[in-house]
Amino acid sequence: MTDLIFRRANRTDLEAIVDMLVDDYIGAKREDGSRPLNAKYLAAFEAIEADRNQFLLVVEEAGEIVGSLQLSFIPGIARLGMWRGQIEGVRIKSSKRGSGLGHKMFAWAIEQCRAKGCELVQLAMDKTRTDTLRFYESLGFKASHEGMKLDLTKS
Amino acid sequence: MTDLIFRRANRTDLEAIVDMLVDDYIGAKREDGSRPLNAKYLAAFEAIEADRNQFLLVVEEAGEIVGSLQLSFIPGIARLGMWRGQIEGVRIKSSKRGSGLGHKMFAWAIEQCRAKGCELVQLAMDKTRTDTLRFYESLGFKASHEGMKLDLTKS
Repeated sequence: MTDLIFRRANRTDLEAIVDMLVDDYIGAKREDGSRPLNAKYLAAFEAIEADRNQFLLVVEEAGEIVGSLQLSFIPGIARLGMWRGQIEGVRIKSSKRGSGLGHKMFAWAIEQCRAKGCELVQLAMDKTRTDTLRFYESLGFKASHEGMKLDLTKS
Repeated sequence: MTDLIFRRANRTDLEAIVDMLVDDYIGAKREDGSRPLNAKYLAAFEAIEADRNQFLLVVEEAGEIVGSLQLSFIPGIARLGMWRGQIEGVRIKSSKRGSGLGHKMFAWAIEQCRAKGCELVQLAMDKTRTDTLRFYESLGFKASHEGMKLDLTKS
């Protein structure tokens, strides 16, 4: 593996990020890989850019985007005013899966959370992704909570 | 039950919010109900105030704070640039539990999420709170995800 660059995503990375979202058995059903890019993705990118507590990461290898995730830093009153870091939208280019890239991305994300003063990192894992539970447990995550979701498009 | 006022929390509500956090079997172990208020709570309140995607709700009844929750609006690229609403720190004054106040608070929170354009509302429920799972399911939430937590103070 050549050098990896971990950096904030630019607008020009958006097509590569969407392509990774589409290239996923869950994402395939609910994303739009068409060109020009669906304007909803551009609006979302701008909303992320406008919120200093959001960080959209891309990982670049030899000029190519090979991974992405979103970090949200969430202030809260509970637990003595603890900040939490939240990870969403973790995607790795299919040709790079199993290469250890996911571990590196999580190590990076966890380090960002520490640097920001977060005492907790959290994420919600779709229960049908049975193979990823062990991955998260190997990083020290515990499945201590139920991740409850309410789909407002169906209610 | 007299009229309920749903409004954004002020700094002067903070003691009442912390008292509700302390008055909880999980919260009792990790909060600080002393006066003057622990400065960490004040710093957290200011961080919430400074982030326009955070909304700290209090519910007031006859001049008394009887409930609180935090809403986070999170932009994201996935699912066609979907916004999600996230609910944390739900607390109800012990004397008001079982009065239907929780249902009203969630109905309010879900409505705010719709108004903001969110297509999903999410929360993580401690698995030891077995009595609250049915409550969330009655609101339409599904326990479709594992809520994974990594405690950075222990690793």
